[in-house]
Amino acid sequence: MSMQNPVFIPGPTNIPDELRREIDFGTIDHRSSVFNEMFQPALAGVKRILKTTTAEALIFPSTGTGAWEAAITNTLSPGDKVLIGRWGMFSHRWIDMCQRHGLKVIIVEAKWGKGVPLDAYAAALYGDRDQDIKAVMVTHNETATGVKSDIAAVRELLTKAKHPAMLLVDGVSSIASMDFRMDEWGVDIAITGSQKGFMLPPGLAILGVSPKALAAMETAKLPRTFFDFRDMLNTNAAGGFPYTPPVQLIRGLNHAIGMLENEGLENVFARHHRLAQGVREAVSAWGLKLCANSPDLYSDTVSAVVVPAKFDGTKFVTHAAEKYGVAFGVGLGEVAGKVFRIGHLGMLTDVMVCSGLSAAEMTMRDLKFPIAAGSGVAAAQEYFRKNEAEKLSPLKDAA
Amino acid sequence: MSMQNPVFIPGPTNIPDELRREIDFGTIDHRSSVFNEMFQPALAGVKRILKTTTAEALIFPSTGTGAWEAAITNTLSPGDKVLIGRWGMFSHRWIDMCQRHGLKVIIVEAKWGKGVPLDAYAAALYGDRDQDIKAVMVTHNETATGVKSDIAAVRELLTKAKHPAMLLVDGVSSIASMDFRMDEWGVDIAITGSQKGFMLPPGLAILGVSPKALAAMETAKLPRTFFDFRDMLNTNAAGGFPYTPPVQLIRGLNHAIGMLENEGLENVFARHHRLAQGVREAVSAWGLKLCANSPDLYSDTVSAVVVPAKFDGTKFVTHAAEKYGVAFGVGLGEVAGKVFRIGHLGMLTDVMVCSGLSAAEMTMRDLKFPIAAGSGVAAAQEYFRKNEAEKLSPLKDAA
Amino acid sequence: MSMQNPVFIPGPTNIPDELRREIDFGTIDHRSSVFNEMFQPALAGVKRILKTTTAEALIFPSTGTGAWEAAITNTLSPGDKVLIGRWGMFSHRWIDMCQRHGLKVIIVEAKWGKGVPLDAYAAALYGDRDQDIKAVMVTHNETATGVKSDIAAVRELLTKAKHPAMLLVDGVSSIASMDFRMDEWGVDIAITGSQKGFMLPPGLAILGVSPKALAAMETAKLPRTFFDFRDMLNTNAAGGFPYTPPVQLIRGLNHAIGMLENEGLENVFARHHRLAQGVREAVSAWGLKLCANSPDLYSDTVSAVVVPAKFDGTKFVTHAAEKYGVAFGVGLGEVAGKVFRIGHLGMLTDVMVCSGLSAAEMTMRDLKFPIAAGSGVAAAQEYFRKNEAEKLSPLKDAA
Amino acid sequence: MSMQNPVFIPGPTNIPDELRREIDFGTIDHRSSVFNEMFQPALAGVKRILKTTTAEALIFPSTGTGAWEAAITNTLSPGDKVLIGRWGMFSHRWIDMCQRHGLKVIIVEAKWGKGVPLDAYAAALYGDRDQDIKAVMVTHNETATGVKSDIAAVRELLTKAKHPAMLLVDGVSSIASMDFRMDEWGVDIAITGSQKGFMLPPGLAILGVSPKALAAMETAKLPRTFFDFRDMLNTNAAGGFPYTPPVQLIRGLNHAIGMLENEGLENVFARHHRLAQGVREAVSAWGLKLCANSPDLYSDTVSAVVVPAKFDGTKFVTHAAEKYGVAFGVGLGEVAGKVFRIGHLGMLTDVMVCSGLSAAEMTMRDLKFPIAAGSGVAAAQEYFRKNEAEKLSPLKDAA
Repeated sequence: MSMQNPVFIPGPTNIPDELRREIDFGTIDHRSSVFNEMFQPALAGVKRILKTTTAEALIFPSTGTGAWEAAITNTLSPGDKVLIGRWGMFSHRWIDMCQRHGLKVIIVEAKWGKGVPLDAYAAALYGDRDQDIKAVMVTHNETATGVKSDIAAVRELLTKAKHPAMLLVDGVSSIASMDFRMDEWGVDIAITGSQKGFMLPPGLAILGVSPKALAAMETAKLPRTFFDFRDMLNTNAAGGFPYTPPVQLIRGLNHAIGMLENEGLENVFARHHRLAQGVREAVSAWGLKLCANSPDLYSDTVSAVVVPAKFDGTKFVTHAAEKYGVAFGVGLGEVAGKVFRIGHLGMLTDVMVCSGLSAAEMTMRDLKFPIAAGSGVAAAQEYFRKNEAEKLSPLKDAA
Repeated sequence: MSMQNPVFIPGPTNIPDELRREIDFGTIDHRSSVFNEMFQPALAGVKRILKTTTAEALIFPSTGTGAWEAAITNTLSPGDKVLIGRWGMFSHRWIDMCQRHGLKVIIVEAKWGKGVPLDAYAAALYGDRDQDIKAVMVTHNETATGVKSDIAAVRELLTKAKHPAMLLVDGVSSIASMDFRMDEWGVDIAITGSQKGFMLPPGLAILGVSPKALAAMETAKLPRTFFDFRDMLNTNAAGGFPYTPPVQLIRGLNHAIGMLENEGLENVFARHHRLAQGVREAVSAWGLKLCANSPDLYSDTVSAVVVPAKFDGTKFVTHAAEKYGVAFGVGLGEVAGKVFRIGHLGMLTDVMVCSGLSAAEMTMRDLKFPIAAGSGVAAAQEYFRKNEAEKLSPLKDAA
Repeated sequence: MSMQNPVFIPGPTNIPDELRREIDFGTIDHRSSVFNEMFQPALAGVKRILKTTTAEALIFPSTGTGAWEAAITNTLSPGDKVLIGRWGMFSHRWIDMCQRHGLKVIIVEAKWGKGVPLDAYAAALYGDRDQDIKAVMVTHNETATGVKSDIAAVRELLTKAKHPAMLLVDGVSSIASMDFRMDEWGVDIAITGSQKGFMLPPGLAILGVSPKALAAMETAKLPRTFFDFRDMLNTNAAGGFPYTPPVQLIRGLNHAIGMLENEGLENVFARHHRLAQGVREAVSAWGLKLCANSPDLYSDTVSAVVVPAKFDGTKFVTHAAEKYGVAFGVGLGEVAGKVFRIGHLGMLTDVMVCSGLSAAEMTMRDLKFPIAAGSGVAAAQEYFRKNEAEKLSPLKDAA
Repeated sequence: MSMQNPVFIPGPTNIPDELRREIDFGTIDHRSSVFNEMFQPALAGVKRILKTTTAEALIFPSTGTGAWEAAITNTLSPGDKVLIGRWGMFSHRWIDMCQRHGLKVIIVEAKWGKGVPLDAYAAALYGDRDQDIKAVMVTHNETATGVKSDIAAVRELLTKAKHPAMLLVDGVSSIASMDFRMDEWGVDIAITGSQKGFMLPPGLAILGVSPKALAAMETAKLPRTFFDFRDMLNTNAAGGFPYTPPVQLIRGLNHAIGMLENEGLENVFARHHRLAQGVREAVSAWGLKLCANSPDLYSDTVSAVVVPAKFDGTKFVTHAAEKYGVAFGVGLGEVAGKVFRIGHLGMLTDVMVCSGLSAAEMTMRDLKFPIAAGSGVAAAQEYFRKNEAEKLSPLKDAA
């Protein structure tokens, strides 16, 4: 019997039916205007979601990792110096990619559970007398630890230090779910994918690229063709694509943006915050702690829950999947086994969250975690009751 | 934002994705063998689900109400005497239909919350000296009160009384979810639809018709054409249908039966019992009672929960829908306002049940029912944990 | 390999993707306002399609045959006299239904290939001195022969004869594809289904019922419950349905009406006429004749093509299906074997028609019909080229 | 009105309904075994389609262009010498990519309309005294001109010349539609995508990589992370993926391979050849010529038709799309305006081909090409009739 529980991995998210329908259509001629009539609104919509009026939006048939690579190969040259911090598995992987592409990578280490270490970034920037650092890179929401970082503060650092480096930001698990202000924060490249806040299947790398980054593109020497911004921008400008475009997902992206904007972007963020807070109330009721060290770091899209000493977060995830058919995220890298992760982004409701928390409680009790049955669910329920969501339109439920 | 919580109405049920895919196909020629290759296995499958080797299966593009009408118009004549009990809204409606079709209806009243009153049925049968009663009618699972009745016992009555009346059974909300034994129980017409245990959209009236009922068909004088068993049987025998068949749902029915049989029919019943028991544990933890008067009457597909005095079950349903986007069933007829109903049939998992219970708890607390947050969910969780389901295959989840 | 050629049966029609998507959604609570918000616009839309402002629209989970039965059981009593003509299989079946429901049926025979015999109808009406005839029944478009009848002329007869009989019209294969004017023509009951002009899967019986027919309902004595107009009207008025409604198809109907009205109903009729004319040009180029005796009788939804003497229309249909995977309609009743039928209604384009004509040509040549390869396709092409359709929007093709 | 004609572009192809259903499912946990149970069979299936038992299969969320890039960046280093021919737009683009990645590219020019120039390749190989050429690159099926090249002959050249260069082959528009023998032809990297012979939406880059190419991977110096074979092979070996995998398309690929193998790969090729031949009969009946210079070069997946002097192939494509809603391919590069292209790969039937040919004929006549109406369709029909396809199972049509 195929049973379809919601997933609680931190992406890909649960896909709304209306998006599944939207991407389920037959082949169209991607060289005709039909395609462009889907594509241009998608590009324009991405800019609105990124809150930019100055950047270009680019979409590749790829993933967030591809967007990372596109960001560096289009703006940097072998040997270029970049500054980047590591406080989780995803920042770690971006560092690795930079190194493999021959960049000189200044790595700032932070505790897993902390966000961007502003002091260390500042030290590196002020220490860079010749202003050789070409790019400062930050993971906005570290999916491995459930930690968000303060991008505005990094921009402020750059401004204060009068440092001309570009600011490249990985917003894969934040954009379209948490506040992101490309122009206001002076982000030069914003990076995301289709399968998180946009609630689509994976398959799109989505980027916003500032005029400064576009200028850097002209002199960047790292080789690239598939991810070349120039080919993409040139063909896009003529209503085309440098190769076969991911038509289905682009139409879906267009529709997803419409859904987000119908709800209102700030309402979307508030909804994510509210559901995340419900989860945090449950964690607290269980007597457990988040990996994120302090409330200002709490991510609204994923919570990494620290398991009690002697317990195993990975076993938790396996047990929940096998016995209850509910998917959570394991701990990765330094926090492997030490946490389990609850994704709470994309299409999700109060009662879906309660179902995930129930799965977590049953699992923890099966595994003898010292947890009272129903305690977390009760805490979340009370929070949800008292912090009312925008009313759900029942019509929209069927739409 | 369209949010898709599971529904907890007592049918139509949540539709598994694989059934949605199965019924989503383009037009085929229903006069060709393509149709018959879907149709014959569906008919054969219905017989297996009904546990009959002697009856014919019939499928009309209609609903359970249409099946009620088909059952009486094909076997009875104006003025015929029928014996039928009333203990809920659905038995009430069948009575009304009999009266409107000119039958002489002997009505046995029972308390709403009780099942078939065997004594009163016995009295009527023994009192029927001339054995004029042509049909004894029973609602197997009264959806309005969450009460199941003992069909085997009714058959035993008939046998003991040596009464030749046909036994017509409304199994709309029991068949394919709860044990049903057409041949063993000597049921002459078994009635159901597509949208309950078969987990499909509404649109099919499904019947099993015994040889005795088929014989009655030959002399029945109530007029009928659309629902005429003879036209249906004759065209079906030639691989056809008397008019345009509901091709999509017939293919879906075929697949639904495959799903049920892959799981194993007894496992399907056990699953329904287990989920129902989880709900009952929650009701008990809330300090509430079911409308069904005793455990032997408890339905495994729907629970009607009696609201505390001075509270309103209908308001509960409205509030849950509006604030939490979760659909429960209202009380109908005599129990309107006095109960709310939780449907727990078809595609449903432990954690989906927990989400429904959470919605119920939040709703009750909002409405000031004297209920502790999380209490029911906790009770259900503990029951589910200790009474393990067959392991969910994660592969099947995606199938 | 599953290959998906368009079908050329006279209904169910090819289902547009956007309608398939529209009916593919999960269960909603049919007792909530969500349902009514789909349902009321569907009822209102049916009235617009029928071109009535005075009639009520009714929708049953059934088929056109069910609508036939609903029309007579709700307005007539056993022994009532009705006047009806027979000139094809579908008019024949409606006659049979009337007889089985105990009506006194005055049958007017016409040649298969002719339409309503106005003289014979007139004779019957003028001969009905006591004006006992309660209903005059006409098949607007006889699907078996591809013949349309003049409903306005029948109304004129009634008016001239000052006869109070109701006018019941079977518009199953005309409504939403060919001009139909319920109010202007004084139709008392208009009958159709979901699977022809509305391009949906089968499963809905759709009726328009005039005030006069509604008045007749009050005294009609034929028993009915499932198809009872009163139950339907009463529950509909309160936003409900007398039993589980066919939610998926009702939402689809709503959307189908939107599609038809976006195109413009007169444009829809013109499109059907144009495609039908293309088919007729092909038939003429083949040197064959239609079953319909004269151009004024030609149906725009289906053409019954008379096969040359000694050839077999049924073999044609079997061969086309087996060798070319293309479905045509066989001849029924009196014209069995003598014709094959090409359905050309619903979603269909110029080039789809050409594919059907190609299948017909290959089949005829395989079977040694004296036909030149490509001759019919060429004629259709030239007609289509010179009688341009409204331009297809390529965007809509993907919509 | 959305009308859904088949497309006749040379990919993406018409998507069979059963594949659309197969890729339409909700999110699963891609870190669980559910994913791997889809993925491993897909990898194994790709190897069978490529006819290799020695190569590794790799799948990236990307397109054929991404596969081109993966092929070179994983096996070559800046400054490496490669030999490649240009006889169409797609071979041209691969050359451009090689140059942009800093390879020394020995370009052999051939006439557009010819295939791989074996003599020129031989000359280059024999002239390469130091055997510096690291890779010989060939476009198996040049989509721009409808020309297939003889890969076995290139391998023979290499063998005769005892040259150790790798053989990299672009099979994007041939693999899974035309014969391709990776092991027998000694292909070191075979390149394709999801949207041609596999009949899926675009979104997958699919490669077969020989042991020799895997060895080259260890020393290749071109930077790459997203497309890195090592990361992919390492994570795949552990049942995972280096980043979020394109779950939906991978499941679809798995199913597509099953469809192809159910039909039988040789039957798939025969079907493509037969349909292509039908198109060629039509072209010949029109008195036109293919861009491909001789029958041995004719592609079975796409035909580039040379328009008569003074006519414009691009106008043809625009007109067919706008007036008839049918998509053909324009000429690209050197043959822009001089040809139009008819794609005939993937899901396609005899009568679909006839519909495409009808669209072409109407278009050509509208534009005053000297063509007789129906002439091409007639020729194709006669060819199809006499060269019978495997019988279509009508059941499969609905499957």
